[in-house]
Amino acid sequence: MFEAAELGRTLDKDIYKKELPDLRAELLQIQQELLGCNFPVLVLISGVDGAGKGEMVNQLHEWMDPRHLETTAFDAPTDEEKERPHFWRYWRALPPKGKIGIHFSSWYSDPITQKVEGKIADHDLEAYLSRINILEKMLVDDGVLLIKLWLHLGKKHYKERIKSLAADPKTAWRVTQKNIDNIKVYDSFREVAEITLTQTSTGQAPWIIVEGYDANYRSLTVGRLLRDMIRKRMDTDPRVLVSPGMDWSSKAVDKTTLLDFVDLEKSLGKKEYLEQLTHYQAHLSELARKAHKNKISTVMALEGWDAAGKGGMIRRIIHALDARHYRVIPVAAPTDEEKARHYLWRFWRHLQRGGHFTIFDRTWYGRVLVERIEGYAREDEWIRAYQEINEFEEELTEHGIVLMKYWLHIDKDEQLARFKAREQISYKQHKITDEDYRNRERWDDYAMAIADMVERTSTRHAPWDIIEGNDKRYARVRALQLLCERLEKVL
Amino acid sequence: MFEAAELGRTLDKDIYKKELPDLRAELLQIQQELLGCNFPVLVLISGVDGAGKGEMVNQLHEWMDPRHLETTAFDAPTDEEKERPHFWRYWRALPPKGKIGIHFSSWYSDPITQKVEGKIADHDLEAYLSRINILEKMLVDDGVLLIKLWLHLGKKHYKERIKSLAADPKTAWRVTQKNIDNIKVYDSFREVAEITLTQTSTGQAPWIIVEGYDANYRSLTVGRLLRDMIRKRMDTDPRVLVSPGMDWSSKAVDKTTLLDFVDLEKSLGKKEYLEQLTHYQAHLSELARKAHKNKISTVMALEGWDAAGKGGMIRRIIHALDARHYRVIPVAAPTDEEKARHYLWRFWRHLQRGGHFTIFDRTWYGRVLVERIEGYAREDEWIRAYQEINEFEEELTEHGIVLMKYWLHIDKDEQLARFKAREQISYKQHKITDEDYRNRERWDDYAMAIADMVERTSTRHAPWDIIEGNDKRYARVRALQLLCERLEKVL
Repeated sequence: MFEAAELGRTLDKDIYKKELPDLRAELLQIQQELLGCNFPVLVLISGVDGAGKGEMVNQLHEWMDPRHLETTAFDAPTDEEKERPHFWRYWRALPPKGKIGIHFSSWYSDPITQKVEGKIADHDLEAYLSRINILEKMLVDDGVLLIKLWLHLGKKHYKERIKSLAADPKTAWRVTQKNIDNIKVYDSFREVAEITLTQTSTGQAPWIIVEGYDANYRSLTVGRLLRDMIRKRMDTDPRVLVSPGMDWSSKAVDKTTLLDFVDLEKSLGKKEYLEQLTHYQAHLSELARKAHKNKISTVMALEGWDAAGKGGMIRRIIHALDARHYRVIPVAAPTDEEKARHYLWRFWRHLQRGGHFTIFDRTWYGRVLVERIEGYAREDEWIRAYQEINEFEEELTEHGIVLMKYWLHIDKDEQLARFKAREQISYKQHKITDEDYRNRERWDDYAMAIADMVERTSTRHAPWDIIEGNDKRYARVRALQLLCERLEKVL
Repeated sequence: MFEAAELGRTLDKDIYKKELPDLRAELLQIQQELLGCNFPVLVLISGVDGAGKGEMVNQLHEWMDPRHLETTAFDAPTDEEKERPHFWRYWRALPPKGKIGIHFSSWYSDPITQKVEGKIADHDLEAYLSRINILEKMLVDDGVLLIKLWLHLGKKHYKERIKSLAADPKTAWRVTQKNIDNIKVYDSFREVAEITLTQTSTGQAPWIIVEGYDANYRSLTVGRLLRDMIRKRMDTDPRVLVSPGMDWSSKAVDKTTLLDFVDLEKSLGKKEYLEQLTHYQAHLSELARKAHKNKISTVMALEGWDAAGKGGMIRRIIHALDARHYRVIPVAAPTDEEKARHYLWRFWRHLQRGGHFTIFDRTWYGRVLVERIEGYAREDEWIRAYQEINEFEEELTEHGIVLMKYWLHIDKDEQLARFKAREQISYKQHKITDEDYRNRERWDDYAMAIADMVERTSTRHAPWDIIEGNDKRYARVRALQLLCERLEKVL
């Protein structure tokens, strides 16, 4: 794989000088046009130590307009990053549409380094790389132009480079013990890199290997690559980019869904309710304290029919929590900063620190519910969202986050009764709008979408709980009980 | 000051029960209306340990709609926070318009605690409090409804409370050694608190002291306060809120400004230029490395006439920097998240981590330049902006940030020549728009505004450098030279 990049290629200085002015003008022109385009460019830079990655990126910044080019280097994670799932730091640095982001020491650094140092096994590496493939597919599907560059250097040239840097008093400071040690592990590094590149050179995001031996050669090569790849993408009809979705026809022979099997008769008497409410709230309060102490975070994803009682349920839950340790996130229309990125970005950004609760009032499931039904998302978008969501949730749970997903269920008659009741109470009137009645007319479509959602996203690590909601008292106690049970298991 | 809040006031349970339903309905109603209002509410909670601050805030969250209420507790700063100026963490947590933010352990915690512990002197406390006054004035002037609540408890009641908590096995865990120690320092705490409250009870943001002895009393009092203060603010004609600006008439008897005294004849020959450019870039490269190692950050505020050559200057500067350690921030129209907050928020948020360069291509000075000239900011807004900006910059420099402010100056003929030249180069055509020609017509107005700006914001800690820019070569070298000189001084 790397043979062609270990030849010591150089570029004639005259060719370089001749081509450079045009290349720079073209890159600037492209950046300017990109500002008006509906996709971001994400460049991942990896490769062999000493292959000139830093110099090359600096060069790009000089050639291009640095105001629309953001380079992020991922060194040791900060404590705010450590308290979130692994990929959080990469998500927060994703470039918005119209801009170019360069990720230095991207999500490939950790797995390669750890494998070379013998800290993880083969299957760990493989699992990690599969996860990367899913993440990259998610980004590419969303329109990100992903360019993955591997700057390479053969062993002989690597040794030479370190020696020559060390020999020159002006550059000797750049040579660290790490560089010298890297000579010894070069072969195993090369092997792990080959495995990594092979497994992650997917159709949607292939690796491009560039020999880093000669500064002019590597800079001009990368400059041309960026120019050509961005230009090609701009010239591509966006319809071609839509990955064909599977044929989505319901397998069910009738219109019955799992929701029809929910026992909505369940209820609690007032006395029982107050007893159990107090009991579970006290218990939750204790568990939450312990979770905070142990820095175990909880994410609650709350979905349900309009007027199902999410608000009242949230109030009963937070009664047991400390206001300093939770945040309720109402999911409304995205801001323009959110619209400029992948739809999951706006959920990633709200994840709270270690030991905190993040309570989403409506969630990322909007993608496969309202966006599906109302046509805000294309069919291929909502169809692939199931996998994207599963992946997102797996990242949360892998980090040790307790993830609760509630569908608060009521039936159609109960909903109507509640709409009418709300219209009688002045401070609740704002809660009922024409939209609520419109949504109601599409009840059956929603029921089907909910059934699909539960079927495809109730996973081992993140199961759905359907909460019987016709009786508010029962629903509130049930929500508390389920939360307590789950917290107990992990604490 | 605190006598009236050390009486052990209680509230009759029946009164509480009777009033509560209406109060809650009103609070919800107000929150709903607030969403459509053009101001945020910021509630600062301070007070005596054990006065029920946490319980009271939890209570508010339960009464109100927790989706539009964000409580932030400021514990020990994270490493990302430590690498920025002191107030950065508070700025990042400011609520947007239409929402309520509660700051727990707000900017008052540090000064009070440090004074009580004898870590700072009287004049340090005073300086800190003046700074708070300026910050609060800035927020209030911008429309923030600032509510400062001090929950109090007399010494006798404090002792009682700690004892009774410790006696009950269910609450004993809440009593820490710190609480017990606080009994000993109660008197000095009370004294420092009195000084603090006296000095910061300003017209625009007075303190409100609430006795915290009885849960019902304090909750109902605070609930009523919020209701009444927000309601009153909603009912106030916004024109009344505009603080009368000073009369702004130029003192100058002629139209000459300091810009007329800039020697635009300064220039460099090509050979000299290349020599000096190389020299200063090499020097800067070394200094930047050292700054990064020592975690000293640099903020560059670049302003200048259209076509003055900021872009080319930036490119010569970043040539000497590592792309991983700087960010160029182009200041364009604010996003909707930015528009929902104080105009300085969008600059605060871009401050990079320790050891990094943040290069602003156009800056917060837009407030007193384009916003003043074009009328985007009201007169009282841009007039008070000078002080706000000075304060902002002082916070940067106090944190140890190296702050460079360049006005890149050219004359009117030179500008026209450059416009014409740019129109000839395809990839630079986008840089010249009708707006540039329109701005040009207001050259004299801008010149006056620039002179005012330099006069009022060239401070000891953050002086302006006017860079003679008719000769691009001279300007670039000069910019590098000034930067190197300043870095040398601090490194």
